[in-house]
Amino acid sequence: MIISSSKNPKIKHVSRLRLRKYRERTGSFLVEGAREIDQALRSSLVCQEIFFVREMLNEVSRKLIKKQQQQEITLTVFQKISVRENSDGLIGIFETPDRNLIDLTNLSVSRVMILEGVEKPGNLGALLRTADAVGIDAVFITSTPIDPYSPNSIRASLGTVFKIPVISTTNQKIRDFCYRSHLKLFLAVPTKGTSLFETKFPSHFALVLGSESQGLSSYWLSLGDSRITIPMCGTGDSLNLSVSAAILLYEAWRQMAAKKVT
Amino acid sequence: MIISSSKNPKIKHVSRLRLRKYRERTGSFLVEGAREIDQALRSSLVCQEIFFVREMLNEVSRKLIKKQQQQEITLTVFQKISVRENSDGLIGIFETPDRNLIDLTNLSVSRVMILEGVEKPGNLGALLRTADAVGIDAVFITSTPIDPYSPNSIRASLGTVFKIPVISTTNQKIRDFCYRSHLKLFLAVPTKGTSLFETKFPSHFALVLGSESQGLSSYWLSLGDSRITIPMCGTGDSLNLSVSAAILLYEAWRQMAAKKVT
Repeated sequence: MIISSSKNPKIKHVSRLRLRKYRERTGSFLVEGAREIDQALRSSLVCQEIFFVREMLNEVSRKLIKKQQQQEITLTVFQKISVRENSDGLIGIFETPDRNLIDLTNLSVSRVMILEGVEKPGNLGALLRTADAVGIDAVFITSTPIDPYSPNSIRASLGTVFKIPVISTTNQKIRDFCYRSHLKLFLAVPTKGTSLFETKFPSHFALVLGSESQGLSSYWLSLGDSRITIPMCGTGDSLNLSVSAAILLYEAWRQMAAKKVT
Repeated sequence: MIISSSKNPKIKHVSRLRLRKYRERTGSFLVEGAREIDQALRSSLVCQEIFFVREMLNEVSRKLIKKQQQQEITLTVFQKISVRENSDGLIGIFETPDRNLIDLTNLSVSRVMILEGVEKPGNLGALLRTADAVGIDAVFITSTPIDPYSPNSIRASLGTVFKIPVISTTNQKIRDFCYRSHLKLFLAVPTKGTSLFETKFPSHFALVLGSESQGLSSYWLSLGDSRITIPMCGTGDSLNLSVSAAILLYEAWRQMAAKKVT
């Protein structure tokens, strides 16, 4: 049966999944586009159903949805539920992965990134891409209304949000987790920290980054952990958050790689 | 005399300066906003005239325009010529700096960035911010329609475009310049180059970066210069151009700093 009405209960369900509260209540989220759906499936996320428009299918997308619960819809219905430009006629409903601190404690986590007060889904996405590139084990987000499973965040992350555990919790719980896991904390600060070029990263660490406009809160700054500053020749506000995170994490990775060689 | 008509010849001149061709013909460009005008003046750019709206002036902007040729305009006229959101009532006309290769040859240039086919003013701006942070001596742009002195590029660069010489010329001239200046060329490539972690940067080098969608052209790739690749754990397309440039340039700077210490 092709669904041709946007009043169909399934379509209403998809539409409501644009709202964060509804996503949280149902434990589901949307993934639009063949590339992103492919990444979600490769990351072993559980797909509940994929909606497709027959005339937009190609060989790749046909193969992709073959083994999944699928439902054909008309182009008109698709245009009602699609949130992307240049979409390719596929939208999937996935189960939100239930990632929490207890799971992580059982994993062997050695390098994590902590993001306080991320301001935009696009920023989060870019930071997740960097975390993916350097092999970070988990990303914590705190003091932010941003949902990592919102369509914008998924898109900006190029699907890396499916690969890296992203856990939204409180500062206190994150800090406790870091202590239990023997992760040394490094706070990224714009000035007056130890120069990155003089910082020695241990094998187990957590890098804590604040928002671009506010920096880190007094919660983190009052606790006496190590502070790192990226050296700068310029005016001092030359690097954005995503660039700063990349510079810091690549230097940590470089040190790790150098140790393995020697 | 307050200018209250947008048909005034001076205002028409300002409006036309939004067009690249007119900027090139007149050798002038616009700088909007107190912060950017301040940066342009500090970088010794020549200001021809500053237009201001009296009721939007504050202590800072009043001081800023004090020694400059100034012209009061009405808010209505300002709104016609302003291209920024949340503007602060100041627009200046500056002389385009005449930066060319001959000037550079006379300078002592040791580290340069070469950008082929930059696609957006925002990208160029972000790359200039990074170049400023690591103290790059000059930036060459080639095969791009982007004018570094367009309002969007100035804004995205946070004014760093005024500090670093940005020279738009041909690949051949850039390459000749690099040879004459004894700069070792490093081409940034997404795969199959020498790992950044195994690259030794000499004191004099040029980093060549292609566009995000096209990479480097065959002009550069056919010439046998050193290729660098940033190591990646992830899917391989995780880093954007601006992040990649920052990782590469910071590693080069770190090596330089380490040499100075030993």
